[in-house]
Amino acid sequence: MKLTYFGVDNIPMVEPGDDLVDLISEALAGMGESLQENDVVVIAQKIISKAEDRYLDLRTVEPGEEAIRLAEEVDKDPRKVQAILDESNDVVRARPGVLIVEQKGGFVQANAGIDQSNIMQGDGDPDELCLLLPVDSDASAEKIRQLIAQRHNVNVGVIINDSLGRAWRMGTLGLAIGVAGFTALEDYIGGYDIYGRELQVTQVGAADEMAAGASLVMGQTTEKTPVVIVRGYLPAEPDDEALRGVKPLIRPRDMDMFR
Amino acid sequence: MKLTYFGVDNIPMVEPGDDLVDLISEALAGMGESLQENDVVVIAQKIISKAEDRYLDLRTVEPGEEAIRLAEEVDKDPRKVQAILDESNDVVRARPGVLIVEQKGGFVQANAGIDQSNIMQGDGDPDELCLLLPVDSDASAEKIRQLIAQRHNVNVGVIINDSLGRAWRMGTLGLAIGVAGFTALEDYIGGYDIYGRELQVTQVGAADEMAAGASLVMGQTTEKTPVVIVRGYLPAEPDDEALRGVKPLIRPRDMDMFR
Repeated sequence: MKLTYFGVDNIPMVEPGDDLVDLISEALAGMGESLQENDVVVIAQKIISKAEDRYLDLRTVEPGEEAIRLAEEVDKDPRKVQAILDESNDVVRARPGVLIVEQKGGFVQANAGIDQSNIMQGDGDPDELCLLLPVDSDASAEKIRQLIAQRHNVNVGVIINDSLGRAWRMGTLGLAIGVAGFTALEDYIGGYDIYGRELQVTQVGAADEMAAGASLVMGQTTEKTPVVIVRGYLPAEPDDEALRGVKPLIRPRDMDMFR
Repeated sequence: MKLTYFGVDNIPMVEPGDDLVDLISEALAGMGESLQENDVVVIAQKIISKAEDRYLDLRTVEPGEEAIRLAEEVDKDPRKVQAILDESNDVVRARPGVLIVEQKGGFVQANAGIDQSNIMQGDGDPDELCLLLPVDSDASAEKIRQLIAQRHNVNVGVIINDSLGRAWRMGTLGLAIGVAGFTALEDYIGGYDIYGRELQVTQVGAADEMAAGASLVMGQTTEKTPVVIVRGYLPAEPDDEALRGVKPLIRPRDMDMFR
């Protein structure tokens, strides 16, 4: 099996309302490339959020009591803490300089994925500007998948990825926060090993493995490659609708020993 | 940037004492391929352990008091629990069916990475046989890197990967447990974003992102592809010896909020 990851060059700066499918198709055409059947299109969360105008001006945020208290504890701007709380289900860890939450989509991550780097909007002060995660990353991914099918007549998978910190290990890892068109969690329950023994470890975070591989190609210091095409492997879409999207990758809270 | 991951076909069953560099080179030759300058060779932990004869026959293990008590708590074979403890620095979580430890190499993982699937040795009873992680995965990786340099006159990176469970997310992820020849943790401290703002999130687990991407190609149900070549990107080897190998990816215990 051979998998190729290639960055889509020359995606322009994304502005609210931009049609990402058009931007990606045009950039691919500029490379002499086009989307092919069974490609997976990995898109950085940041340009999805920009296209969906998920900017938040901190000057419009009024921190409440909990945010003010928590901001002192974690030594952050109370307005930003309020924004984080607004985007979260739960606070997982709060320490000076660190605020790890369960973001509304179920992702355990620092600052609810709210980002202040590589953003600039109109004549706004970049220090006052935040970018929130998409409202529903699975829906964003599915919309892009459908637009690609309609316009280009190819069936692709879509991953929206983001760089997340993690327990036990240093360094962020690109992980899937939105998935469309294929199985995010591959399930080998009932599978057998090469000696016919029933497999013990049975679930593989396939979309995360792909998102991580793509993240390496995206790089981190510039925003020049926010889209990566993965060519060579598209796991089938699950029949069961409940198993679609990124949700199967989220460990239910009551099954999580590390909250 | 373009990265290609391809599985090395037809690696034979690995036996203790096998020369993996020879096996890989021969299998590549059979594909009309060879190692190229700046490739990264990703090798599944399991065949490293097999080549290094890290088999353990549980019938030789005498469980001690702690293992017997813990085995009851986690509902596992006391001999296997003793083997896990022998391979560990610390127990991180113990629940019925679950024993998560800090393996001697610093990896937080279930059962200290001890595996019972896809192994068979001589005429032994596979139910009594375990396979331990390599004693020093970095040293194993470095030895392979040097042999490749000597025999094939190419500079490559080497990753030994394993499938690890994780906090917060379902499904295992292929991660690096041994690294040689390049920077496992890419450091952007002092870097700037496209608007000249200093970057906040600054460390990327590059070797883990590559290990994850390779793990997808390896697949899980068979052992047919325990070696994957990553072609297109080799981050430089750090000058500082302390930054080499997998260690920079291990979060020091006192910086870990999730133990």
